[in-house]
Amino acid sequence: MTSAVADVDLGPGAAVAVVDVGGTDTKTSMLDASGRLSEVVHSPTPRGPDVVERVVDGVVAHVEAMRAAGTPPQAVGLVVPGIVDSERGVAVHSENLGWRDVPYRELIAARTGLPVGFGHDVAAAGRAELVLGAARGERDVAVVVVGTGIAAALFVDGVPLLGHGWAGELGHSVVDPRGAHCVCGADGCLEAIASTAAIARRYAAVTGEAVAGSREVLERAQAGDARAREVWDGAIEALAAGIRQLAAILSPQVVVLGGGLSRAGDALFAPLTAAVARHVPPHRVPELRPAKVGAHAGLLGAALLGREAIA
Amino acid sequence: MTSAVADVDLGPGAAVAVVDVGGTDTKTSMLDASGRLSEVVHSPTPRGPDVVERVVDGVVAHVEAMRAAGTPPQAVGLVVPGIVDSERGVAVHSENLGWRDVPYRELIAARTGLPVGFGHDVAAAGRAELVLGAARGERDVAVVVVGTGIAAALFVDGVPLLGHGWAGELGHSVVDPRGAHCVCGADGCLEAIASTAAIARRYAAVTGEAVAGSREVLERAQAGDARAREVWDGAIEALAAGIRQLAAILSPQVVVLGGGLSRAGDALFAPLTAAVARHVPPHRVPELRPAKVGAHAGLLGAALLGREAIA
Repeated sequence: MTSAVADVDLGPGAAVAVVDVGGTDTKTSMLDASGRLSEVVHSPTPRGPDVVERVVDGVVAHVEAMRAAGTPPQAVGLVVPGIVDSERGVAVHSENLGWRDVPYRELIAARTGLPVGFGHDVAAAGRAELVLGAARGERDVAVVVVGTGIAAALFVDGVPLLGHGWAGELGHSVVDPRGAHCVCGADGCLEAIASTAAIARRYAAVTGEAVAGSREVLERAQAGDARAREVWDGAIEALAAGIRQLAAILSPQVVVLGGGLSRAGDALFAPLTAAVARHVPPHRVPELRPAKVGAHAGLLGAALLGREAIA
Repeated sequence: MTSAVADVDLGPGAAVAVVDVGGTDTKTSMLDASGRLSEVVHSPTPRGPDVVERVVDGVVAHVEAMRAAGTPPQAVGLVVPGIVDSERGVAVHSENLGWRDVPYRELIAARTGLPVGFGHDVAAAGRAELVLGAARGERDVAVVVVGTGIAAALFVDGVPLLGHGWAGELGHSVVDPRGAHCVCGADGCLEAIASTAAIARRYAAVTGEAVAGSREVLERAQAGDARAREVWDGAIEALAAGIRQLAAILSPQVVVLGGGLSRAGDALFAPLTAAVARHVPPHRVPELRPAKVGAHAGLLGAALLGREAIA
């Protein structure tokens, strides 16, 4: 599967091989010297005990394909999910993909001989929204990406708040101590209620009917299915609770919503904006905005990292 | 009532009149030229429609008393609760004290002719813990003050995270959507369950017996009163939930606990440390420490602000 890229331009510079490893889907593209991403190739993210080798092999194969095509990259930009220490170039931990302390930057630099920009998928996507997208010109921003998992890229005075890779794990903040059990062991994590995977899973659990994903749950809710409505509204309420936690603790002026769920448009933003505003009397109510570079923000962030890795 | 001051030394510099307006109690002291605080005078914080005038009058009277005693201050340091815009010198809002948009810095400078350092009580207390106390030398820190209200001073890479005065309102982050109703209008705010005032109020509501404060609830719990135990344990669980939110969103390495509740010592720290560690698998577990400059951290922070206000 391939997909076109939002009309975003990074400006002239180095060509970069870019890869965004997601919880479900891995996206691969090329940033050309004019600053545009090529068509994006989607493939399933590898699973299993050899996941690290297969991710590295995939990146190396992409670099070799670019070389064979006569458009050799000058750097690699790679972003992955989970806990990432971008300073050390290490993927510290991913609950979903089952890895720990993987020195991806080193592994890929050794195999390709190229400088490697390495970072966290959501942090990179957030940076792309801040530099090129929905939060351009803002200072205190949270970019919340709701896909298979949920995480946030946080910016205070325009500076990323990383906590050595541990900050922004909004998906594992508890929004309801009596809520659904989460893969992390806690009950009521935001991610266990409001991720695209959780929405589909919860509907299937309630009805016994499998659905293709959160989009189908929304469509059923809009068609009058009361159980789908309940699951969807529960996800909205949980997201509002997570955003209110951000408002209380950090008080971002703008919250950008990206990831698969944000494509629901008004069915998400209208009730969510109302729910966030309902209960924040002592807080500054953040403005909610849809992601702009959106679907490919992670790749664009990886491209920014790749260019920055060139000494 | 007066109280002695922790053995903290700011070093030689200007003499400052310092005032810490709390939700219940106002503390007044003098920083001398050697860098030590004099004995602290406690008085009830004024209430009612003329609260602003009475606070200003109190500060002016303190400056005049210092002048009359032959130890004239070169600056004023004033800290207040609520939402504070320290850049503009304005107390934006206090739910408890009922004021809005009070230009304290200007009002007091006009009456005293002195430079005025003005800030948020908890932010100032947090800064004192970072510069002089329990978090000295740390970079990613939350100082959580649990008194009549609950608020946090947040530091990322040693820099205060202010959000124009709106950040750190941890007391109004919801820890249980089915929890006690809060003065702010929401249900289940941390402050409505775990502040010293809430602990006393909840015990009185359950038993019909008034208590002097949270300390008495703890004493009754330790003496075997099951209802006191339930209220105390509920407060610990709520505090742990608030700290886990901080861990998920910001991931501080150290959480310093100050305010009245922190004087409970092991009865607070032992179960709280266990509760925080129980449910943070994907997060970095923060180290909990008792406040060190503690009871007078707000005054010491006000003293730091006062000295910095001198051009």
